Amino acid sequence: MKPSSEEEEEEAVRGVGPWDECFEVAVQLALRAGQIIRKALTEEKQVSTKTSAADLVTETDHRVEDLIVSELRKRFPSHRFIAEEATASGAKCVLTHSPTWIIDPIDGTCNFVHRFPTVAVSIGFAVHQELEFGVIHHCTEERLYTGRRGRGAFCNGQRLQVSRETDLAKALVLTEIGPKRDPDTLKVFLSNMERLLHAKAHGVRVIGSSTLALCYLASGAADAYYQFGLHCWDLAAATVIIREAGGIVIDTSGGPLDLMSCRVVAAGTREMAALIAQALQTINYGRDDEK
Amino acid sequence: MKPSSEEEEEEAVRGVGPWDECFEVAVQLALRAGQIIRKALTEEKQVSTKTSAADLVTETDHRVEDLIVSELRKRFPSHRFIAEEATASGAKCVLTHSPTWIIDPIDGTCNFVHRFPTVAVSIGFAVHQELEFGVIHHCTEERLYTGRRGRGAFCNGQRLQVSRETDLAKALVLTEIGPKRDPDTLKVFLSNMERLLHAKAHGVRVIGSSTLALCYLASGAADAYYQFGLHCWDLAAATVIIREAGGIVIDTSGGPLDLMSCRVVAAGTREMAALIAQALQTINYGRDDEK
Repeated sequence: MKPSSEEEEEEAVRGVGPWDECFEVAVQLALRAGQIIRKALTEEKQVSTKTSAADLVTETDHRVEDLIVSELRKRFPSHRFIAEEATASGAKCVLTHSPTWIIDPIDGTCNFVHRFPTVAVSIGFAVHQELEFGVIHHCTEERLYTGRRGRGAFCNGQRLQVSRETDLAKALVLTEIGPKRDPDTLKVFLSNMERLLHAKAHGVRVIGSSTLALCYLASGAADAYYQFGLHCWDLAAATVIIREAGGIVIDTSGGPLDLMSCRVVAAGTREMAALIAQALQTINYGRDDEK
Repeated sequence: MKPSSEEEEEEAVRGVGPWDECFEVAVQLALRAGQIIRKALTEEKQVSTKTSAADLVTETDHRVEDLIVSELRKRFPSHRFIAEEATASGAKCVLTHSPTWIIDPIDGTCNFVHRFPTVAVSIGFAVHQELEFGVIHHCTEERLYTGRRGRGAFCNGQRLQVSRETDLAKALVLTEIGPKRDPDTLKVFLSNMERLLHAKAHGVRVIGSSTLALCYLASGAADAYYQFGLHCWDLAAATVIIREAGGIVIDTSGGPLDLMSCRVVAAGTREMAALIAQALQTINYGRDDEK
């Protein structure tokens, strides 16, 4: 790989991959964040709402995001950041060509609030608008999912491989409800689920964490995932992991993924992804970079 | 407790609870079954269907049920059995006054087929039609949930306590789709989910295992559970665990639980259970003891 910046050159001289140090720091921070979240799961929580009564945030979301961003800023002062809680507080969500960290401090905040044990930290990293690696820590089960462009995807050191299923009638499909709960949005959400069940999908699962659902897809434990209303920080790290596990991540229109479009279809195979995309009615959540 | 049978007398003489030996054997068998299931998760599976294309069974379901029932029959030759796969093969499902084991060898068979890591063994035990204990083994996470009438509920030795939430607008609600997938059934299933989301429940989760969803409820990780189309073997062990964790298990009509009625509402509080029961439209799955 041709080094394209000073940092990359420097790392190439040291004989390591251009973003190895960043990756190692991300792993350490995801593990530290997991410790904080596991401890907080046993304590009382102050819960606030964001865009809707179902869109929750806690002091732990802020604390974990602050830890990750401040440590990364110290180590990599020229890098940029897109992080869930900073964005909720008004920071712009723009992916430039600069090395950019895309962070969800707690994916599955509603689960976290209820101590439902499906909660993750997600750290993605992009350079020149291309996703380089993703690190996701399933905090309660202490599973660390990682993917690096061109170097495979792993969970606790074991290589991940997506399902090869192409038949929707044999598929286990994952989705999430999304934060909008007005009657029209709910109708389309439920109608999409109905279409997949009519098409005789084996089942539909809703686990309350987009990031972990995408990790299950990467590990071959499900055949497809779709969602409207997720954000780039739910998706960035998982996208690298799925692609490196041999899977497909596309837009719900069937076209290429747009990380900022708040919608996604992921699947083990191109055929399955196309079948899911064809079945879906769109729910418009706007774009992350236009908020 | 007044001994009411020879076996109970014998055990009372030995200075232990009347069903302690049965409980210990159930724990050992649930752990052995979990080992078999974990191993089978890594292997190719032969999958067959039962009542619908979504109602799956594998050779591991049969193998685990045969192991559990044959071992229990050897140890307790006078006891009776209700077990999922024997019932599917035509055995009657009747709860008499005799000591009766109620067994689901793999709860979450669809998950098991897909290697989706939410799979359990469930062993319940009733005497005089009253549930005495329940043992549930979450195979992939090696969590053992137990409940004994009058003696509390535990997960890996830690005491379980349900949520005290009474406000549906702060509730995390669990449900399962059920095996019937005809258009009318799906409409009611989705309409029930819509009603709870309109009532502003924080979220609805569908994890693919009734038994484990009920264990999450017992541990306080969710506030309510409802389902149409589950069976007595999905419910028996979990019911003791929830009640011993301080929770409520009732019929979807709001009346007392009928283990054979293929429907249930469970919650941390009586208020929450009543709110859920009021919100639901009925899906008729018949009765386990009339099939």
